[in-house]
Amino acid sequence: MDLTRNVVFVSAQKIVVQVPLRWGDMDAYRHVNNVEVVRLLEEARVRAFGPPAHTGLPGVQVEHAVFSDVPEGVQSLVVEHQVKYISPLNYRNVPCTVEVWVSAIKGASIALSYQIFDGVDGGLCVKARTTLAFFDEGTGRLTRVSPEHRSTLERYLIVSS
Amino acid sequence: MDLTRNVVFVSAQKIVVQVPLRWGDMDAYRHVNNVEVVRLLEEARVRAFGPPAHTGLPGVQVEHAVFSDVPEGVQSLVVEHQVKYISPLNYRNVPCTVEVWVSAIKGASIALSYQIFDGVDGGLCVKARTTLAFFDEGTGRLTRVSPEHRSTLERYLIVSS
Amino acid sequence: MDLTRNVVFVSAQKIVVQVPLRWGDMDAYRHVNNVEVVRLLEEARVRAFGPPAHTGLPGVQVEHAVFSDVPEGVQSLVVEHQVKYISPLNYRNVPCTVEVWVSAIKGASIALSYQIFDGVDGGLCVKARTTLAFFDEGTGRLTRVSPEHRSTLERYLIVSS
Amino acid sequence: MDLTRNVVFVSAQKIVVQVPLRWGDMDAYRHVNNVEVVRLLEEARVRAFGPPAHTGLPGVQVEHAVFSDVPEGVQSLVVEHQVKYISPLNYRNVPCTVEVWVSAIKGASIALSYQIFDGVDGGLCVKARTTLAFFDEGTGRLTRVSPEHRSTLERYLIVSS
Repeated sequence: MDLTRNVVFVSAQKIVVQVPLRWGDMDAYRHVNNVEVVRLLEEARVRAFGPPAHTGLPGVQVEHAVFSDVPEGVQSLVVEHQVKYISPLNYRNVPCTVEVWVSAIKGASIALSYQIFDGVDGGLCVKARTTLAFFDEGTGRLTRVSPEHRSTLERYLIVSS
Repeated sequence: MDLTRNVVFVSAQKIVVQVPLRWGDMDAYRHVNNVEVVRLLEEARVRAFGPPAHTGLPGVQVEHAVFSDVPEGVQSLVVEHQVKYISPLNYRNVPCTVEVWVSAIKGASIALSYQIFDGVDGGLCVKARTTLAFFDEGTGRLTRVSPEHRSTLERYLIVSS
Repeated sequence: MDLTRNVVFVSAQKIVVQVPLRWGDMDAYRHVNNVEVVRLLEEARVRAFGPPAHTGLPGVQVEHAVFSDVPEGVQSLVVEHQVKYISPLNYRNVPCTVEVWVSAIKGASIALSYQIFDGVDGGLCVKARTTLAFFDEGTGRLTRVSPEHRSTLERYLIVSS
Repeated sequence: MDLTRNVVFVSAQKIVVQVPLRWGDMDAYRHVNNVEVVRLLEEARVRAFGPPAHTGLPGVQVEHAVFSDVPEGVQSLVVEHQVKYISPLNYRNVPCTVEVWVSAIKGASIALSYQIFDGVDGGLCVKARTTLAFFDEGTGRLTRVSPEHRSTLERYLIVSS
């Protein structure tokens, strides 16, 4: 652990996004299925830092473009997920609220952390952390986090000791 | 075909809903997968006439409660889908627009029709029709469309000759 | 309708495939969700005529290669689905049985028909028909069914009058 | 950490299951989507220790019934996932191979570990660990791992120091 980074930026903002549920996210237990929760994390990332570049067609420009702002041939790959299911997430026809922040910025990878809250009663349902790396299909190697992305991500960096 | 119903209610309104896409809706062809289009139809029904009652927890009350307003033990079952893929639906981080209307009201079933449009360029991508029936788990039989639901649904009834 | 094709090839065989269900295919009604049934049709097509070419990596060679045997840049696109839900499909940890046959071969499109049966009691749950066309990304146009594919498909052609 | 359990049972067997992929598991990056990998873990659990009881209808009896052998009203809930994506999992029309073993047995929860291997070249793609608890809907409390389940699970217990 780099000590210079081992600091809680208490003033850092979390990005708060609303992620709509789908009725089909429920499984036979009648809660949002644990796998679909991981899908919601993907959607939270997309809302916070843009959809993966060079897939789909343009929509709205996100304020903090990271994933939507990588060169042709670079993929934003999930390297690791850690997901803690604190309380079952119930389906509602209102979005759940997801707080997203940056929990690590390394040379060639970043980590995002999330908390998912029930959209009505505000209860905490899920805590999660995803590590992502930027993979260059052309060279077959990871590519470094660009200074621009680092600058964007640092605004939301909260590193737990 | 009941001739008394074989009339185009030209003044009838369609319900227009915005259905968000998910990045994961794309398949290896890099369009919204044909199966996920059917998921979007489910979401359009839920937005137009409410989520199936007695599943999930309450959110917002929909204006035209039909599926969300059936007695305990009654399921709204899909009996038939017809889906025409006019043009590939592209993923964008803006919702697609879905027009929903009622194309048939029978004794114990209804049909909904839809058109899905690209959320940016407005292009027509999908035309579809779903027949649904109300199934009573207790009796094991279909249950009739209630007068209240019929009244709600008739406001959006457009029957093609 | 081309009369020369309007013939029932009574001796034609149907292709019978076993398609495994996933526990997550169930929705809050505790049956296989109607959307996931359409996913099962996709899997039945893949088992019968091969996975779409140039996606994924090689596995086993299917006996009747059609979708897995198109030139680079040609996509097998779903043009239309018709799906009749005869009886709820229950999740079991045994595959459902799907009969697949060819119901039409046109110049630039084909239609497949299916019946899905419960894997234990053999009950008929779903009848469906999918029309597919072969789209050339390079030219932006549909491409004709090749003589080789036509020959393969005709072995399973059952045209209802 | 309970020292009496901090032992590698070197002779313990892993359960090896084959989990079929679906073509739709691929995303726009043309690999199996990271979320669908978590679905594959669910399927591996189901194959190893049975589908969650009281959902779906009977199929084949699994040899090591755990999830399929809980009392009415008890749900097997995922409490935590840790998933490391070692190498992209490619879609193939052959199943991936998943090794499943038990990495912890606590009073009211268990942990399963997995390794997912490519079905053709045998490459290691994913390492994961899931903690599950047994939740009694009636009492609203967790329920203890039964002696029978403990006995079954201990046969596959491999505890890393």
